[in-house]
Amino acid sequence: MVIRLNADSEIAASTFGARAARLAAMAKLGLPVPDAVLLSKTTVQAIAQRGDIPTLPDDLLHGGLLSVRSSPENLDWGGPTAILNIGVNDAFVENSGSVGFRGAVGLYRRFIQRYATSVEHLDPEDFENLYYGQLKKTGVDRVDGLSDQEMVEMLENFKALFEAEVGTSFPEDPVEQLNGVLQSVAKAWNAPTAKILRLAKGAPEDAGLAIVVQRMALGLGPDSGAGVVQMVDSNTGRARLRGRYLPQAQGLDAMMGARAPTMITTEEQAEAGLEAPSLEQMLPDVIERLVDIGKVAAMGVGDAFRFEFTVQNGEVFVLDAMPANRTARASLRIAVDLAEQGAITRNEALLRIEPRNLVEHLHTQIDPTATPDVFGTGLRASPGAATGKIVFSPEAAMVSESQEDPCILVRVETSPEDIRGMHSAKGVLTVRGGMTSHAAVIARGLGLPCVVGAGDLKLDLANQTITTLDGRVFRVGDVITVDGTNGQAMVGAPKMILPELGVAFLTIMEWADKARTIGVRANADTPSDARVARDFKVDGIGLCRTEHMFFEEDRITVMREMILANTEVERREALDRLLPMQRSDFIELFEIMRGLPVTIRLLDPPLHEFLPHSHDEMLDLAQAMDMPVSKVIARADGLKEFNPMLGKRGVRLGVTMPEIYEMQARAIFEAAVEVSQSSGEEVVPEVMIPLVSANREVELVKNSVDRIAADVRLETGHALKFKLGVMVETPRAALRAGDLAENSAFLSFGTNDLTQMTYGLSRDDAGRFMRDYINLDVYHEDPFHTLDLEGVGELLLMAANRGRERNNDLVLGLCGEHGGDPASVRFCKVAGFDYVSCSPFRVPIARLAAAQASILTDE
Amino acid sequence: MVIRLNADSEIAASTFGARAARLAAMAKLGLPVPDAVLLSKTTVQAIAQRGDIPTLPDDLLHGGLLSVRSSPENLDWGGPTAILNIGVNDAFVENSGSVGFRGAVGLYRRFIQRYATSVEHLDPEDFENLYYGQLKKTGVDRVDGLSDQEMVEMLENFKALFEAEVGTSFPEDPVEQLNGVLQSVAKAWNAPTAKILRLAKGAPEDAGLAIVVQRMALGLGPDSGAGVVQMVDSNTGRARLRGRYLPQAQGLDAMMGARAPTMITTEEQAEAGLEAPSLEQMLPDVIERLVDIGKVAAMGVGDAFRFEFTVQNGEVFVLDAMPANRTARASLRIAVDLAEQGAITRNEALLRIEPRNLVEHLHTQIDPTATPDVFGTGLRASPGAATGKIVFSPEAAMVSESQEDPCILVRVETSPEDIRGMHSAKGVLTVRGGMTSHAAVIARGLGLPCVVGAGDLKLDLANQTITTLDGRVFRVGDVITVDGTNGQAMVGAPKMILPELGVAFLTIMEWADKARTIGVRANADTPSDARVARDFKVDGIGLCRTEHMFFEEDRITVMREMILANTEVERREALDRLLPMQRSDFIELFEIMRGLPVTIRLLDPPLHEFLPHSHDEMLDLAQAMDMPVSKVIARADGLKEFNPMLGKRGVRLGVTMPEIYEMQARAIFEAAVEVSQSSGEEVVPEVMIPLVSANREVELVKNSVDRIAADVRLETGHALKFKLGVMVETPRAALRAGDLAENSAFLSFGTNDLTQMTYGLSRDDAGRFMRDYINLDVYHEDPFHTLDLEGVGELLLMAANRGRERNNDLVLGLCGEHGGDPASVRFCKVAGFDYVSCSPFRVPIARLAAAQASILTDE
Repeated sequence: MVIRLNADSEIAASTFGARAARLAAMAKLGLPVPDAVLLSKTTVQAIAQRGDIPTLPDDLLHGGLLSVRSSPENLDWGGPTAILNIGVNDAFVENSGSVGFRGAVGLYRRFIQRYATSVEHLDPEDFENLYYGQLKKTGVDRVDGLSDQEMVEMLENFKALFEAEVGTSFPEDPVEQLNGVLQSVAKAWNAPTAKILRLAKGAPEDAGLAIVVQRMALGLGPDSGAGVVQMVDSNTGRARLRGRYLPQAQGLDAMMGARAPTMITTEEQAEAGLEAPSLEQMLPDVIERLVDIGKVAAMGVGDAFRFEFTVQNGEVFVLDAMPANRTARASLRIAVDLAEQGAITRNEALLRIEPRNLVEHLHTQIDPTATPDVFGTGLRASPGAATGKIVFSPEAAMVSESQEDPCILVRVETSPEDIRGMHSAKGVLTVRGGMTSHAAVIARGLGLPCVVGAGDLKLDLANQTITTLDGRVFRVGDVITVDGTNGQAMVGAPKMILPELGVAFLTIMEWADKARTIGVRANADTPSDARVARDFKVDGIGLCRTEHMFFEEDRITVMREMILANTEVERREALDRLLPMQRSDFIELFEIMRGLPVTIRLLDPPLHEFLPHSHDEMLDLAQAMDMPVSKVIARADGLKEFNPMLGKRGVRLGVTMPEIYEMQARAIFEAAVEVSQSSGEEVVPEVMIPLVSANREVELVKNSVDRIAADVRLETGHALKFKLGVMVETPRAALRAGDLAENSAFLSFGTNDLTQMTYGLSRDDAGRFMRDYINLDVYHEDPFHTLDLEGVGELLLMAANRGRERNNDLVLGLCGEHGGDPASVRFCKVAGFDYVSCSPFRVPIARLAAAQASILTDE
Repeated sequence: MVIRLNADSEIAASTFGARAARLAAMAKLGLPVPDAVLLSKTTVQAIAQRGDIPTLPDDLLHGGLLSVRSSPENLDWGGPTAILNIGVNDAFVENSGSVGFRGAVGLYRRFIQRYATSVEHLDPEDFENLYYGQLKKTGVDRVDGLSDQEMVEMLENFKALFEAEVGTSFPEDPVEQLNGVLQSVAKAWNAPTAKILRLAKGAPEDAGLAIVVQRMALGLGPDSGAGVVQMVDSNTGRARLRGRYLPQAQGLDAMMGARAPTMITTEEQAEAGLEAPSLEQMLPDVIERLVDIGKVAAMGVGDAFRFEFTVQNGEVFVLDAMPANRTARASLRIAVDLAEQGAITRNEALLRIEPRNLVEHLHTQIDPTATPDVFGTGLRASPGAATGKIVFSPEAAMVSESQEDPCILVRVETSPEDIRGMHSAKGVLTVRGGMTSHAAVIARGLGLPCVVGAGDLKLDLANQTITTLDGRVFRVGDVITVDGTNGQAMVGAPKMILPELGVAFLTIMEWADKARTIGVRANADTPSDARVARDFKVDGIGLCRTEHMFFEEDRITVMREMILANTEVERREALDRLLPMQRSDFIELFEIMRGLPVTIRLLDPPLHEFLPHSHDEMLDLAQAMDMPVSKVIARADGLKEFNPMLGKRGVRLGVTMPEIYEMQARAIFEAAVEVSQSSGEEVVPEVMIPLVSANREVELVKNSVDRIAADVRLETGHALKFKLGVMVETPRAALRAGDLAENSAFLSFGTNDLTQMTYGLSRDDAGRFMRDYINLDVYHEDPFHTLDLEGVGELLLMAANRGRERNNDLVLGLCGEHGGDPASVRFCKVAGFDYVSCSPFRVPIARLAAAQASILTDE
């Protein structure tokens, strides 16, 4: 198919390629696009395969010089570069007009060379030799130095070389030239190298090429030239002309040549330290015209563009229009500006932004222009970059913090005992562990830059050194930088870019909240987490892990006494001492989150996680408990497990030592009553049971929690309300969700553990081979990062359906790491979930992803 | 409802109770059951609630003495004991006939006492005092010593006591007596204690009582008496009269009295060392009659019975008939005999036997008459009992074996390094671990008595002692006995019963194999396992775990070198040395199993399981590898995992270090070719990939295995055939079974791991709370023991359907521990599986369970 470009054409990129479609859109908006015809992919294929050249309109063929541009469906897929000035011949030189005689002869000579190499596949070097030979013989450096006569002589030499090599004289007929060019361009698309290159960029096997045959705007003569301009700043997205211009030039390629281009605006010219006049100074009317063109294009097509343009005798022609280059950060500003100008809707603006890119707005980053000295690489566990002195223990981190001396905590791996140290450090680097290892999870929760699994580094804790594969050694106090965004550890302190929650960011978040129809909660364990979450405008807390509360200095000893108690009586005595501490935690949490739901998970980890590991700590504990240290060691040993992930934890603790959950329930309820009474606003806590695999577990806990609630009601005289729910983390809980739903107000899917169990894969051990697995495409994505829709996702859907079937009012949530992953959020929205919950620092991502999912599915 | 017993009555136990139904069945067979009427449950309820006594036939009421017996639906549920001789009165004494005057007076006196205490609730002690008072006063020891006059006097005193306490004289009217008895029996059923007792035995809340009102056969007078007889030996099931007889007696209760009963047969009398004449000697015709009655009952009802009978003037009456008492072992013989006599079909015989009870036939047991001194209890990990001296290490076990000194290996828990020691021990006792802990699984595989998780024992390995909770200490060399059938550890060597694969056992197995339509294979890792399996007539090997082969002394070092290799080249070099060893294993296996399929699982455990744990062994390895020991330790450390169950194992090794599986595939294929060629019988090995969670894992292994097969075909010129299959052990593999089926000839469900992952429960750590969980009914059964139909079962069904949908020829098997569990076998049959595979010593159980499932589902 061949179509003449005009203001009414509706051109599909699938038929005529992206360039043609965009040119047509610009023409339709009335922008000054030179006359052209568009050859469809099938037409071009016919040229390539059978030499079937279509008949083109006479007025186009004989109205002046032409260019041939390739128009693939996706510009990334390549395609031969444009061939300009088709139709130049002796007659053109004779009637050179504003181009001038010398200009016309130059065009002609360059066209012969281009035609000879592209269409007839002659060796470009032969022409170069001829050219430089003649310059040398004449004794000049540049073609400008030749006389008219000498220029004609060179042209004739080119023609003669052509004839000698090809066997026929150079074609003077413009139609013959065009046909030759069309065939060469069509065939070039099918060259094996071209094909391999575009397949590598994701093009389909049968990707076709369309062609644009366009009238030339010459760019030669007075007030003439060519340039490229975009209407926004690539880095910030701010509306601002940026670009380059070259007088007396015909296209972008000319800018690679010997002459230096000037900047479009005087401001940019000054910033670049150039002294030549800018386009703004040379041709102010052109600037005005370009601004106008940009506005029309933005309003008409709904994007900020980058234009390739030619100025001919002061008149602007648009040769090509591409979306403006932009960083992830700039795209946010551009989308907001377009929406505020009315060029696109707010929903369109929301859909334009990749949620993951919001990370850039939230964390300090290494300056992209810096060239840091990377000494170790690992997994991108928690984004952002931080610089500090190396410390090897949580205690040292705390000392550093107290001296206001920023530090980076370096560990083989972290355990709950390191949490205090992590709070004190600016960043964390571990040698072992995967994306959902303890260090990674906690760091994300804290918004702390973190690299895990940097397996190439060797840690010698005895000598307090890090040694790299190539033998470099780092010691305590050495300054390093951890870049969690890129998974790198660097020497010293490379230049950083600070985060900035700009107006555009806040605007997008506001629009996202209006658009989304699925809740976003935060996983927050402590009052400070909760404050961060509240600042990020969450809809509540979806997961408060109570165990972290027990690691604080004044509590861990009581906790340990509870664990090592000989009898239920002793255990209850220790729990009685923990009760007021837990209650005060919850009071603070409820006060911070007033008016919003807070879901509290009952104790989950195996008890041995709370016990000390070092002999000194064992000794301390033995003293505190007035017990021989050998007994403490033996008890701790007796609690060890082969597979702690699958051991005595979660509700298994609650069922076999009911007094623990009873204490927690009491602390929650008493806190809820106290805050309800003091604030006058009713707190309805949500209590969540972890690691359920059988319905009877829920029944047993429910009985005891209900009893505690009744006691608290009686004791306080307050009509306490609460919700009891189940955390679905085992495949069996998902399969039996129907039963569970009958005892539950909500089901919250703990997709970290559910993924581990569905795959039979420990997140802490997966790091060892995850990279291989992704490289071999065994897993398309790390399933701990993006929800595995085919396996875990099926269990989620099954559970959601079974649960809702048996309990119409069942609330469904997701509280794994996946709550901050856009694809997973989309899945939850489609599956009809009520909310997702993620670490506070991922809340903005989740809010935007939730908005996008809502826009796409609610339509 | 009231029904007269006659030869045509069809009596339902649900209406008239079990006793009435069985009496009716006997009557129907023409056996001499005394005339009776049967009162239904609703009739008895009406008596209890409203005193509605039904009208009974006159001829029964006035034809002689009567008895009232309770007839609950299940005899285990209790019910008041029989009341005899209703209708005795002054008139009866006057016309005492063959009973004689003194006999009649005695009956009357005893009846007054019984009536007074049962119907009028008088204190039995008052009557006892009266009785012994008169004996004392008269100066005699027994009632026989009284004169006729003195006996009448005592009767009158009883009447007077009755009248004094009740206020009316003792009722002479037989109908009044009967009405009183019926009301008392009906009401007794509703007494709170009776109700609680029967609820505890599983009776429903509304269980009712029926009543039999029966003409008395008196058992008094010449050639008269009462007895109990059963037609088979309770211990062996052999056809043989066993029982007791008491002349001049009226029922079983008389046998508890002062007079000693005699035995039924002279043989039994002699065995008991008694000198009085047996019933056989006294009344040989009665014996003949009893034998005849037993035969008629067996042929008519299809079971061996125990009869309560009365002999009156040489005539035999059957008062009650119950299934003969029998041990589990005897029930096998009884069922076979009944089937061979034609009393029941072979299928009925198969269905009569509880498969689990076959264990008794296969293992040495503690003599049930022994009273062993139990010092520790744990889980019944592997059945059978064994005695030996305590050893605390596998090395010591091997030393003991070499000295032909039987030993019991006592460990905290076992690891693969203990396997050699387990081979050398007679039994295993561990302090930790669950039903599917390493020790338990291996012991079952070896058929070795084993108790695990005996948590009350404290092991002190340094001092080589076991200490019990009450402070008893056992040391190396002390003789103990492990009883895996009952989960007990005992002091010394209690008396044992040896196993005996009797004719009945073999007959049942033969019938089972004919009846079953689902295959039974064995899990067998070694040639000796395979031989045991072949002896147990398996249909093939369903699971050969190759890793156990690597623990043999000459191989473990090479294996360790392979694991610690620095480069792929070094690793391949070690694998090249392992290849001929593996090949020779497989050659032996294929030869033993000739003609039957053998499924070989590629390497599964995490590599660190093969590394040494002690410093000495590390040192040895360092020497063997010419490597600093610190490096060996560091490498071993580096391989440690948080949750080995969910770590780098199974196909994850095969994908990331393909050379390991390549070596194994080559060993399998070369062995198959060699045995095919040497035997002339084609070996088609089945290669199984463990721990799959993504289809791409199967594709990668399949590619490399196919390539090795092609190489072996080329090298040997033999048209090797093989099957490649997947072990479904992760929930995700079950969910994605459709995909997997496209690359697989078979799917074999590894239900041990699948259960672990579905529940999120490590079998090794579950022991800590499994007992609590079963007690609290959180789990009805240990899910590692009986397949969890609601969770794991659903995954199995889902996977089976999805797999078959995509691959019609897909073979489905189960190869977990559940393969030997009857309920799980039934499930597999219903789910359409092709086979189950279990440890060799459970094969007979699986064969019988398979036959039962086939009979029940194929009908």
